[in-house]
Amino acid sequence: MKLQNRFSEELFLTNETGRELYHKYAEKMPIIDYHCHISPKDMYENKEFEDLGEMWLEGDHYKWRAMRCFGIDEKYITGKETSFHDKYLAFAKVLPKMVGNPIFIWCALELKRYFGIDEPLTGENAEEIYQKTKKMIHEQHMTRQWCMEHSNVRLVSTTEDPVDDLQWHKKLAADPSVKTKVITAFRPDQAMFLERPTFDAYLHTLSEAANTPIHHFKDMLDALEKRLQYFQKVTGTTVSDDGIPHFTFVDYTDDEIERIFEKTRRNEKLSVHEVDQYQSAFLYEMGRLYNRNGYVMQLHIGTYLDANTTGVQNVGQSTGFDCTDDQCSVTSVGELLNRLTIAGELPKTIIYPLDGTKIETWAVLAAGFCDNKTPAKVQLGAPWWFNDQQFGIDRQFRSCANLYPVSLSVGMLTDSRSFISYPRHELYRRVFCNYLGELCERGEYFGSEENLKEVIEDVCFNNVNKFFGFHVKA
Amino acid sequence: MKLQNRFSEELFLTNETGRELYHKYAEKMPIIDYHCHISPKDMYENKEFEDLGEMWLEGDHYKWRAMRCFGIDEKYITGKETSFHDKYLAFAKVLPKMVGNPIFIWCALELKRYFGIDEPLTGENAEEIYQKTKKMIHEQHMTRQWCMEHSNVRLVSTTEDPVDDLQWHKKLAADPSVKTKVITAFRPDQAMFLERPTFDAYLHTLSEAANTPIHHFKDMLDALEKRLQYFQKVTGTTVSDDGIPHFTFVDYTDDEIERIFEKTRRNEKLSVHEVDQYQSAFLYEMGRLYNRNGYVMQLHIGTYLDANTTGVQNVGQSTGFDCTDDQCSVTSVGELLNRLTIAGELPKTIIYPLDGTKIETWAVLAAGFCDNKTPAKVQLGAPWWFNDQQFGIDRQFRSCANLYPVSLSVGMLTDSRSFISYPRHELYRRVFCNYLGELCERGEYFGSEENLKEVIEDVCFNNVNKFFGFHVKA
Amino acid sequence: MKLQNRFSEELFLTNETGRELYHKYAEKMPIIDYHCHISPKDMYENKEFEDLGEMWLEGDHYKWRAMRCFGIDEKYITGKETSFHDKYLAFAKVLPKMVGNPIFIWCALELKRYFGIDEPLTGENAEEIYQKTKKMIHEQHMTRQWCMEHSNVRLVSTTEDPVDDLQWHKKLAADPSVKTKVITAFRPDQAMFLERPTFDAYLHTLSEAANTPIHHFKDMLDALEKRLQYFQKVTGTTVSDDGIPHFTFVDYTDDEIERIFEKTRRNEKLSVHEVDQYQSAFLYEMGRLYNRNGYVMQLHIGTYLDANTTGVQNVGQSTGFDCTDDQCSVTSVGELLNRLTIAGELPKTIIYPLDGTKIETWAVLAAGFCDNKTPAKVQLGAPWWFNDQQFGIDRQFRSCANLYPVSLSVGMLTDSRSFISYPRHELYRRVFCNYLGELCERGEYFGSEENLKEVIEDVCFNNVNKFFGFHVKA
Repeated sequence: MKLQNRFSEELFLTNETGRELYHKYAEKMPIIDYHCHISPKDMYENKEFEDLGEMWLEGDHYKWRAMRCFGIDEKYITGKETSFHDKYLAFAKVLPKMVGNPIFIWCALELKRYFGIDEPLTGENAEEIYQKTKKMIHEQHMTRQWCMEHSNVRLVSTTEDPVDDLQWHKKLAADPSVKTKVITAFRPDQAMFLERPTFDAYLHTLSEAANTPIHHFKDMLDALEKRLQYFQKVTGTTVSDDGIPHFTFVDYTDDEIERIFEKTRRNEKLSVHEVDQYQSAFLYEMGRLYNRNGYVMQLHIGTYLDANTTGVQNVGQSTGFDCTDDQCSVTSVGELLNRLTIAGELPKTIIYPLDGTKIETWAVLAAGFCDNKTPAKVQLGAPWWFNDQQFGIDRQFRSCANLYPVSLSVGMLTDSRSFISYPRHELYRRVFCNYLGELCERGEYFGSEENLKEVIEDVCFNNVNKFFGFHVKA
Repeated sequence: MKLQNRFSEELFLTNETGRELYHKYAEKMPIIDYHCHISPKDMYENKEFEDLGEMWLEGDHYKWRAMRCFGIDEKYITGKETSFHDKYLAFAKVLPKMVGNPIFIWCALELKRYFGIDEPLTGENAEEIYQKTKKMIHEQHMTRQWCMEHSNVRLVSTTEDPVDDLQWHKKLAADPSVKTKVITAFRPDQAMFLERPTFDAYLHTLSEAANTPIHHFKDMLDALEKRLQYFQKVTGTTVSDDGIPHFTFVDYTDDEIERIFEKTRRNEKLSVHEVDQYQSAFLYEMGRLYNRNGYVMQLHIGTYLDANTTGVQNVGQSTGFDCTDDQCSVTSVGELLNRLTIAGELPKTIIYPLDGTKIETWAVLAAGFCDNKTPAKVQLGAPWWFNDQQFGIDRQFRSCANLYPVSLSVGMLTDSRSFISYPRHELYRRVFCNYLGELCERGEYFGSEENLKEVIEDVCFNNVNKFFGFHVKA
Repeated sequence: MKLQNRFSEELFLTNETGRELYHKYAEKMPIIDYHCHISPKDMYENKEFEDLGEMWLEGDHYKWRAMRCFGIDEKYITGKETSFHDKYLAFAKVLPKMVGNPIFIWCALELKRYFGIDEPLTGENAEEIYQKTKKMIHEQHMTRQWCMEHSNVRLVSTTEDPVDDLQWHKKLAADPSVKTKVITAFRPDQAMFLERPTFDAYLHTLSEAANTPIHHFKDMLDALEKRLQYFQKVTGTTVSDDGIPHFTFVDYTDDEIERIFEKTRRNEKLSVHEVDQYQSAFLYEMGRLYNRNGYVMQLHIGTYLDANTTGVQNVGQSTGFDCTDDQCSVTSVGELLNRLTIAGELPKTIIYPLDGTKIETWAVLAAGFCDNKTPAKVQLGAPWWFNDQQFGIDRQFRSCANLYPVSLSVGMLTDSRSFISYPRHELYRRVFCNYLGELCERGEYFGSEENLKEVIEDVCFNNVNKFFGFHVKA
């Protein structure tokens, strides 16, 4: 059997036009990673990695989840006592069984791009590759920032809570040796999830951070706006980030919201309707706030966090026990956009539906709220969490280009906690170019190479740069 | 890079068998456009078009939506003061950026089929193509009817409200120069949406049109039946058209319906449950009425109309601010079909789910209600609104043929307001033949060419002709 | 036109690698059909089939449904008076029109594998093929068991109600001439659907079968556990089977459940909330029971049974009038898994969502509940009912491999009432190998042939054998 047994530079590229488009135009574009979860402290401290185990297994819940599917003991997954070497070996042993899983191809891309390794990692060669990569890490001083520079990353946006003092961002900004621009997204989740037992304590911290008392809902909004302006002052950011779990937009009055706010601070149980009212009000007010401060609103829709509460209890939040809700309705988010539009206060908005199977109804919604000034004012985000692989990305192009001009998209983001996940932008670009190539070869698009070049460069870099107003040089 | 830079006659046809099937059988079949929204007045008056701008941009909300996505000023979209020439130029400028969007390929097909132009329209050649097409329009007297004849359209069904006097249909029928048969679908939406402030006023108009007083729900049904019989008398139609937004089938009594009917006429606010009761009763009664008058029931499921109310206020209804509801449940429509079946009064029915992502559950439902007499008694309609492009059509064949014999389908419709949208039938046929060709080449279908020919001719023309009883000659 | 007009051994195999993988590895693997609905009595009695009509049309609701779509008179479908010969002819006449439908390819595979016929069956050659197959059936003594042995089936699991005495299973086990191991799945549906008028009567039968009085919900659970242990004692089974229609997981107390249980036995009407409470409690308790008895829990989610009640009344249950519910939520089943996990009593679980369009959200859920011991503890089942065809199977690989390691899957089952439906395993394996081949040729998987061989043999046979603890020899 003639099997390809090495990484191929034609990965995902099944047609000639796509191949040429990728290598000629997309491959060389720099990266703006406008939404991720890397640690600004780690970035600033800029340590060399210990080994490939640390690079891969320190914080990647995708890999952790997959390892649990294989029934691997938790000590080799997140155990504090186990070395990264041993975790790496446990992972390498099952990697060849991850046929069709993005983890296989992400690892292959990372081995190739950071270490020049193009053979498949297996249980057999795991130790050898471990030693080889460890040597390279130390010889070439592969630090956090090295990885970003090596991947041609021009800007990253981390994600911080409004109460964060941004000390690491200040240090990063003050250090002339840092080549990658770092900003942060404003993520007010803690103020949204009013049912969490930590809500009241959080408000005290927020009050302190904003240096303003919080007695009422309105006070909280004032405090959040102060912090939002602080985030902008320190990092120049225009990025926000709101997660939306199951949510129904319902009517409310200001008085009702204040009463709900008081109730929850007294730790009284709220009804489902009251939670919906609060979240409707919260998202609406945040939208206004983003709009008047020039922020882009990013809505992450349909999270089903902490589904396996035992797993969360044992290992922690965001360690692989979150799932996807299939019930968050288009009309609820639609009504949020509608109310903001009526008020004339709809900010630029990006919608990221977590449930990729229903993505078309969201694309249709986005197009319904574009205006006559800002190109792609409301748009569909890149396939994200669980969808950031060939199938999810390809489906989004194939289905959504029909419903929304894909050439206006702000393109890929990693949403990652890893410093070596930038090849996911490569993956996205390959799938995009292959899609474009197919359109051309099937007669569905015809025109000049110049126009295709423009579309590719826009989606890879220019659109996101303009949409958020980053002013990064290509 | 070797790029195809002209329209190709092999559009969508990626396999040899599909290519032959299309050119040999599908291409030449005449068109029955059994569901559209063209103006019978415009058809009767039969004016020459002013220019390509009028042809494309007078009423096409697909194009308007897309233009708004690009942030184009509304004056170039629907502005009363702006010439079609200038709107056309604004549109042409962004057309090359609509990679992967059906608008690109619809425009290409229309330029090719009506004007013989096979080069791509861009900002650069827009003026030249404008002048060229304008000249052709006037030299060849391209009128509304010319477009239909040129596209081999044998029958069209417009859509009218029950109160319409059908004066233009009478004139069309009386004019021997009109080559295309024109009927109309009976669309009683205004009697369904009882919450609209216009409901009571509408009932007065209906009462007048039917020449019968309307005091009760039953009276309204009588009036509707009179109009339905009038529609049939004037145009010979068997086509109806009911839109279903979010809707839950619930139990009701006749008394409850009468009380709800009275309440709404007194402008009293109805509960969600009351609206569901009314709509359950309304759809059930319309089904009975269609059945006893030999009409086909067409159910358009999952509309999310007027999502952006500001857009509607500024520009109007049906101008690009409608979206897709993802919540209309299979079981609600299932229960409607079930009740009609129990009563022995289920008419022939076509189900058009707007949310294409869930289409399979609807195909399964349709098959569950077929009977032992009428082939495809309940069937899935063509991919419609937002789904009338290669991806949507191809998905429907690929997924639904597994659940319902696709050879029984009544095939494509345009659902369009345009006189030059008939190439959408061509698009559908190309995708269909390509799908059949793939089945053959993959070994999933084998048999005689004669049988494939029959299937193609049935789906393109014969099935719809028989199902509705049109008796049009091929 | 060059059309393939015979069955091809390269069915579904569109790439060279996939072809080789199928023929070299998958084709020869024996079959474990761990979930079907064949009659153990028929198997034991082991009669020769009368003709192809009996083989195909005695109990296959897929074919019956399709025939109704063609408007065929019910007497040729399920009529007691009509011969299988005449039913067969009615079916054969429309078969060539089932382009793209799995029935076409299932029939083709069955004609090929059991009778060596590779020409397409049509109205024209139907009588000839009828006579030919009838002759072969009698010459070769094609009995029920012959079909299973001929298809290399090593184990089948039928499905029985807890009250079944398993007399036929005992006889099968005692008969040394039976080559295929037969076990049965424990299916307690009748105890789940407490709203059925037959519920109370059923409990009396169950009480007798278990030889234990049933006054309370707890008593019923005891009786079920006795029967479950009896099933295991007699057949050695570890297989259970629970259907879940629309269902919302809600909180309940033991007292509430007992009250609901009493109410329903007194034939009092239950609220939707009470039914949800009962079903939540029932599924939770069954999960615990499966876990402590070493059973695998199989959850069939989203059935919409008896949608067409008139059809059911005329022809019977499970005769083609069931549909697919699109509303069963991921979070409800998620909460069931969560509660069982909290209690430390989650059994091995296989999730089969009937609505294939939402399959990804279920794959994500399954991965979230895997543990650190059992590989693929909670996994997604094979595409089942309505999804057991090329499109459904291929979609599941393509979309779900990204979310769950597909190499851990327990693979295909027939869920069938037919003794000749085993080629559906062949269909699954072909689609799987073609998928793997594509991954290889697209550069998404690279590695050794040995590893691909292992993955294929695991998915075809080894995984299911280990997961259920069948200990069948390959």
